[in-house]
Amino acid sequence: MRVYNFNPGPSTLPTEVLEKVQAELLDYQGKGLSVMEMSHRSPEFSDILARAKQNLRDVMKINDNYEILFLQGGASLQFFMLPMNFLSPETKADYIDTGSWASKAVKEARPFGSINVIFSGKNENYSRIPSWNNLPFSDDALYCHITSNNTIYGTQYKDYGNPGGPKLVADMSSDIMTRSFDIEKFSMIYAGAQKNLGPSGVTLVIIRKDFAAKAKSDIPTLLQYKTHIEKDSLYNTPPTFAIYLVMCITEWAVKKGGIDALEKECRVKAGMVYETVDGTDFYIPTASKDSRSLTNITFRLKNEALEKIFIEEAKKEKLIGLKGHRSVGGIRVSNYSAMSLKGIQTLVDFMKDFEKRNT
Amino acid sequence: MRVYNFNPGPSTLPTEVLEKVQAELLDYQGKGLSVMEMSHRSPEFSDILARAKQNLRDVMKINDNYEILFLQGGASLQFFMLPMNFLSPETKADYIDTGSWASKAVKEARPFGSINVIFSGKNENYSRIPSWNNLPFSDDALYCHITSNNTIYGTQYKDYGNPGGPKLVADMSSDIMTRSFDIEKFSMIYAGAQKNLGPSGVTLVIIRKDFAAKAKSDIPTLLQYKTHIEKDSLYNTPPTFAIYLVMCITEWAVKKGGIDALEKECRVKAGMVYETVDGTDFYIPTASKDSRSLTNITFRLKNEALEKIFIEEAKKEKLIGLKGHRSVGGIRVSNYSAMSLKGIQTLVDFMKDFEKRNT
Repeated sequence: MRVYNFNPGPSTLPTEVLEKVQAELLDYQGKGLSVMEMSHRSPEFSDILARAKQNLRDVMKINDNYEILFLQGGASLQFFMLPMNFLSPETKADYIDTGSWASKAVKEARPFGSINVIFSGKNENYSRIPSWNNLPFSDDALYCHITSNNTIYGTQYKDYGNPGGPKLVADMSSDIMTRSFDIEKFSMIYAGAQKNLGPSGVTLVIIRKDFAAKAKSDIPTLLQYKTHIEKDSLYNTPPTFAIYLVMCITEWAVKKGGIDALEKECRVKAGMVYETVDGTDFYIPTASKDSRSLTNITFRLKNEALEKIFIEEAKKEKLIGLKGHRSVGGIRVSNYSAMSLKGIQTLVDFMKDFEKRNT
Repeated sequence: MRVYNFNPGPSTLPTEVLEKVQAELLDYQGKGLSVMEMSHRSPEFSDILARAKQNLRDVMKINDNYEILFLQGGASLQFFMLPMNFLSPETKADYIDTGSWASKAVKEARPFGSINVIFSGKNENYSRIPSWNNLPFSDDALYCHITSNNTIYGTQYKDYGNPGGPKLVADMSSDIMTRSFDIEKFSMIYAGAQKNLGPSGVTLVIIRKDFAAKAKSDIPTLLQYKTHIEKDSLYNTPPTFAIYLVMCITEWAVKKGGIDALEKECRVKAGMVYETVDGTDFYIPTASKDSRSLTNITFRLKNEALEKIFIEEAKKEKLIGLKGHRSVGGIRVSNYSAMSLKGIQTLVDFMKDFEKRNT
């Protein structure tokens, strides 16, 4: 029996997608070989790549001003690839520090240009997202970097208002394909696939063409955005099987009804958990109410000694991966697109029952 | 029915391994989730990682002077990561240019230090590997970079004699785990997994500890070998499913009898193809006899117009992926570890029959 998997990433994938992948693992569409064994330059893989891209455009409403790339190295590689491509000692970018990953992005960018951290939530234990109003944007920043959702702290931008600021670059690793956004507000979006898009090992980059045109060419070939745009993500051997999974999962997302349907379901599921947390003082939410994440819901138990027991007893109900990040403790419910309503209902029932048994 | 897949990479994988992967795709060892859905910090994945490393040590006789790392980005990322970690404008490395990939390694290294190309086969259409004797090694090179096997040109080093030269760094992407070597001759070995070790998307790096100790720390965190050594390949989310495949395939290699058994079989299979090519003037081998590759066997047809027909008719016998690289043309037989003796026998029978029908 499959468990309800609340791991923050790598994380749960749709069972029906895994069943399809399983069925064709040794023989893709009667070709007599696995997708893993195919040349990345074969017509079959070209089709997989093209469909993955088109599905992403369809689901997230990405227009032709933007290129879609599949890279390797995770968000951590983008932390330095981005500034290496666009900054120099004479130029500047704004960064908003809303958590551990945002802070790593700042650290890796510093050697490449002038980095202006226009907000840091560090002294507030990263419990909130700043309001877009009154942020001290630089006049001459080439971009403003944000982390759209903070997996560890359970916070998330409610909108991308950004009045008066430069176009955004967002690390959307933990909430991409869970809610709609206006792509035109962004110069670039990147996301490790392993939360909402597929397995680990492939990184989605959505980059605005006129932004990419300003990228450097005097850096290692593999680290140039231009290389991957020119070669359509086939400069070197891409992670073919991971891209195939992205194709399958985005196909599933299309069938679900696209981003609006996914967002609606995500909000319903998150609402069920937050309602349970808010309806008692047995559970204590950790993120500011106005900054709560839809994809990573974090809370403590009033009696922190019970947290270990909560996690152990949840496992018996097939609810796994609920332990909060080691840097903050407590409980974390990762509510990605592939988490079923039934999984959330089972969790909420368990939470209520656990409370009853322990008060 | 499964085809005989001679693709140069991504390439054929052992059917029995794929069957095992298929069987546990939705439920790994009764845990109720796929390997793709597991946290990379879970006990289950820690075990997969540890077993993959130990299998590699066992199969290839890698001693404890060396670290084993799983990175992303393919050999192409190592082309600049290596010199970025070890070179500076004042220091030097020797490079031997035996093909397109070796030449790319040279190009990506140049910005980081003094690169001394001590042999280039470019003017001979990369048809041979130089003899180790009389190579003009630099007195002060920090390493000598080689490409152990040239997938495109069908050439391969017969030994790693290297008298009087610095320790080697080898790109072994296309012949790792097909023949034995003395690890002590190397400061570092790297290999994209997609030919002999697994699917694309994971890069094996075997690095000598005292060499790694000299690597830089003032470069992006993800590009430091030290980062991955300290964090045991878990600095950021690794390509977990690809590493799991490496574990499965190295387990299969252990059962086969390790490197000596793999090499013996590789030589038998390659011998069957070369014997067929040499026994006629219908087929014309392209690599120098003393430099012939065991893993990529390249030849032309005397009547080049027949090559397209050869490839098309081979497909009807379920023999696929035989087309030579677009830069050289002709036929290429990729004879990696997972290619069965039966596949090679079927190919050789076809070659003889094709010759008979066309002379």
